Amino acid sequence: MNATIETLLNHRSIRSFKDTRLNQEQIDTLVAAAQQASTSSYMMAYSIIGVTDEDKKAELADITGQNYVKENGHLFIFCADLYRTTIKADKKQYEEMLANLENSEHFLVSAIDAALAAQNAAIAAESMGLGICYIGSIRNQMARVDELLSLPKHVIPLFGMVVGEPAQKPEQKPRLPKEAVYFENEYSRYEEELDTFNETIAAYYRSRSNNNRQDSWTDQMLRRFQTPMRMDVTEIVQNKGFNKR
Amino acid sequence: MNATIETLLNHRSIRSFKDTRLNQEQIDTLVAAAQQASTSSYMMAYSIIGVTDEDKKAELADITGQNYVKENGHLFIFCADLYRTTIKADKKQYEEMLANLENSEHFLVSAIDAALAAQNAAIAAESMGLGICYIGSIRNQMARVDELLSLPKHVIPLFGMVVGEPAQKPEQKPRLPKEAVYFENEYSRYEEELDTFNETIAAYYRSRSNNNRQDSWTDQMLRRFQTPMRMDVTEIVQNKGFNKR
Repeated sequence: MNATIETLLNHRSIRSFKDTRLNQEQIDTLVAAAQQASTSSYMMAYSIIGVTDEDKKAELADITGQNYVKENGHLFIFCADLYRTTIKADKKQYEEMLANLENSEHFLVSAIDAALAAQNAAIAAESMGLGICYIGSIRNQMARVDELLSLPKHVIPLFGMVVGEPAQKPEQKPRLPKEAVYFENEYSRYEEELDTFNETIAAYYRSRSNNNRQDSWTDQMLRRFQTPMRMDVTEIVQNKGFNKR
Repeated sequence: MNATIETLLNHRSIRSFKDTRLNQEQIDTLVAAAQQASTSSYMMAYSIIGVTDEDKKAELADITGQNYVKENGHLFIFCADLYRTTIKADKKQYEEMLANLENSEHFLVSAIDAALAAQNAAIAAESMGLGICYIGSIRNQMARVDELLSLPKHVIPLFGMVVGEPAQKPEQKPRLPKEAVYFENEYSRYEEELDTFNETIAAYYRSRSNNNRQDSWTDQMLRRFQTPMRMDVTEIVQNKGFNKR
């Protein structure tokens, strides 16, 4: 097993960091790695905001309910960005572009582009001995985050990522059995494997050192999905010119 | 610079492969790497189909218009998958889950989860000396690809990835200047950097060994966005239970 695959397989999310800021060289390396990811038809349809302002970090920590959004080595916000493609467009061209700017296809393209870039930054960070955690909960108040970062139309904040020197080494969280995720040639049934996984997860939750509880993966998902969540994302992204048709 | 960052920065998409299939151990390693990526709230909201059937590969090559979708070491299709969360739900629970299953929030979550997993597989492959290329053009006929892979409701095909022993070493495609992608604390203007980049790209297109042409990045984007593209994706994903509210 090579060092890169070791890094990939060794991933765990880090939610507690030493009080050390990333230096400019580290930040530049992570951004360069992010930029080298594949991108759909060369669109490079994302932007990254590094948040260093203490007031903004404090507000983002409030919004996400996660104190490590304030206390970390660096905070990145990854955005879907189609605005860049419009900068040189005149009025007529811009109007002709709207069908693509606003359709589901390019909502997908920009979200996927941003995620590929982010994962490259995550892997680069982990290869340097840093820890990372994705922050989906900026979507708790997507409109406020959008405003806080002064994002133009056709740019929306998708998720954050905190990076820093780990101050913890949590256990790795078990993943689904391969048989429930990877299929050959067509989607297949995996009820039994899911049952086995539920038992694994129940044992994991019973035994883990922090927050031990009685639970299974499917129970957790059933509970989670039964409470409507972030239903305002639809309207917010549409107001920003995404996913409207 | 460590070996992982070297791999990340050395990325180029490979579109021509030697006639060697990936072996089971290689495939297992790529899937394991994919599975270890971060996932939103433990949802693991994706599935991966490995396509080995020659007829299916031939049809996918037709759909995408790319012969390397047929001729490669292995073809993966990455899917957004919320179906897995519903398997243990009774009728009442399922109905209560629908608001989340169908909203934009979980369309984003599952697309991002799939992309993070895919990028881990891509990096793992490249670290092993293999080449990769993402295949967004399966969305040319998303409904047919969906059918070909027998995907249940709440599962949609997002993109493919071909992997194999490279039979080419293309030049690296220039990326946007960092100043046009990475901002501190708020989105900033970058018109000048975009002009400089356009000059870089024009020189790249004039000088490259294959397909040299007169072009700039913004011209390319203007042309691309002025022709409505894959407008049917909206309806197809909605028919599969995604992005409906």
